[in-house]
Amino acid sequence: MSTLNTTTTAKKPKTARGQRTRAKLLDAAEGAFGEGGFHTTSIGDITRRASVALGTFYVYFDSKDEIFRALVAHMGEMVRGWIAERVKGARDRMEAEHLGLVAYIEFARAHPNLYRIIEEAQFVAPDAYKAHYDRFAERYCRNLSEAAERGEIREGDETVRAWALIGMSVFLGLRYGIWDTQSSAEDVARKAADLIRRGLEA
Amino acid sequence: MSTLNTTTTAKKPKTARGQRTRAKLLDAAEGAFGEGGFHTTSIGDITRRASVALGTFYVYFDSKDEIFRALVAHMGEMVRGWIAERVKGARDRMEAEHLGLVAYIEFARAHPNLYRIIEEAQFVAPDAYKAHYDRFAERYCRNLSEAAERGEIREGDETVRAWALIGMSVFLGLRYGIWDTQSSAEDVARKAADLIRRGLEA
Repeated sequence: MSTLNTTTTAKKPKTARGQRTRAKLLDAAEGAFGEGGFHTTSIGDITRRASVALGTFYVYFDSKDEIFRALVAHMGEMVRGWIAERVKGARDRMEAEHLGLVAYIEFARAHPNLYRIIEEAQFVAPDAYKAHYDRFAERYCRNLSEAAERGEIREGDETVRAWALIGMSVFLGLRYGIWDTQSSAEDVARKAADLIRRGLEA
Repeated sequence: MSTLNTTTTAKKPKTARGQRTRAKLLDAAEGAFGEGGFHTTSIGDITRRASVALGTFYVYFDSKDEIFRALVAHMGEMVRGWIAERVKGARDRMEAEHLGLVAYIEFARAHPNLYRIIEEAQFVAPDAYKAHYDRFAERYCRNLSEAAERGEIREGDETVRAWALIGMSVFLGLRYGIWDTQSSAEDVARKAADLIRRGLEA
């Protein structure tokens, strides 16, 4: 777990068939890691689940560690894509914050395995975990800077604000996406949006 | 890992000597779990580190799982005590938020093992993890309600606000307490306090 190769492009297949097999392995890994966690999951669990021969696994990945890292990177793309899609019609940053939070909670509900896998990466592949949130924070910083330039939000420290807002999303996603799936995500996000917009000040 | 016994009071020692041995085992467990993680740590690693006979372990804990849960509960008390101590002179809720955040980041820096252990509990002992943050959120809700009643902060949904603010602290603690230990905790908290106080609104 010492390599920093979090994108794992080394063995990316060139044929459509190869891409399908790789995607099937990632899908199976999502289910296996998500249900059992990293430590109790074996490569055999993944290939059985994917209905792929054990030897085929090594055409695409070198180790359990590598497919886990590839999965974290893949999920990062999924969650960013999911949120970007839901936020793209927003009139301003405030509306984007609100829509982004609804999307994040709904992502956690729709993909509890993916959510858990990202969080488990903190221990299993700390560099991949850090890279995941660094990318997330980088984009968030840029969005906040641009919004501040347009006068949509107050000036402030973008890095601190980005990490604070990411932490909010992750914990509201855990609380209302994973633990309590009954509350309305829209309602939770609306209440949080008030805090994000105006803070606690009386 | 199915029991909900997160307080593990069952085997709490009655003598001062017994309490010392138990504390020594918890200390050793903090170092062992913190450095190696739950899965690679054995009971033998803990007793060797504590210079305690293997058989003595079972006088205090039934299993590796149980000492891990006891450690999560113990750490919860530590972090709550640490923050309460630092916040008690605050003039109002806003100052308490600021001081609490500085204290949280400094706690993460002073106890990176403890911080990691709480987060690993999410996978190793999910009920103990949930109980840890539920207790944290419960106290936070009460503090926010009382502050709102005193007119120090705006009315709002206390549960959503508590979880949002906890998420902020946890992620700022990770980013500035564990990953980057060079930035001034005071400075980070001041920048975040502006977001907490006034939100993003221009």
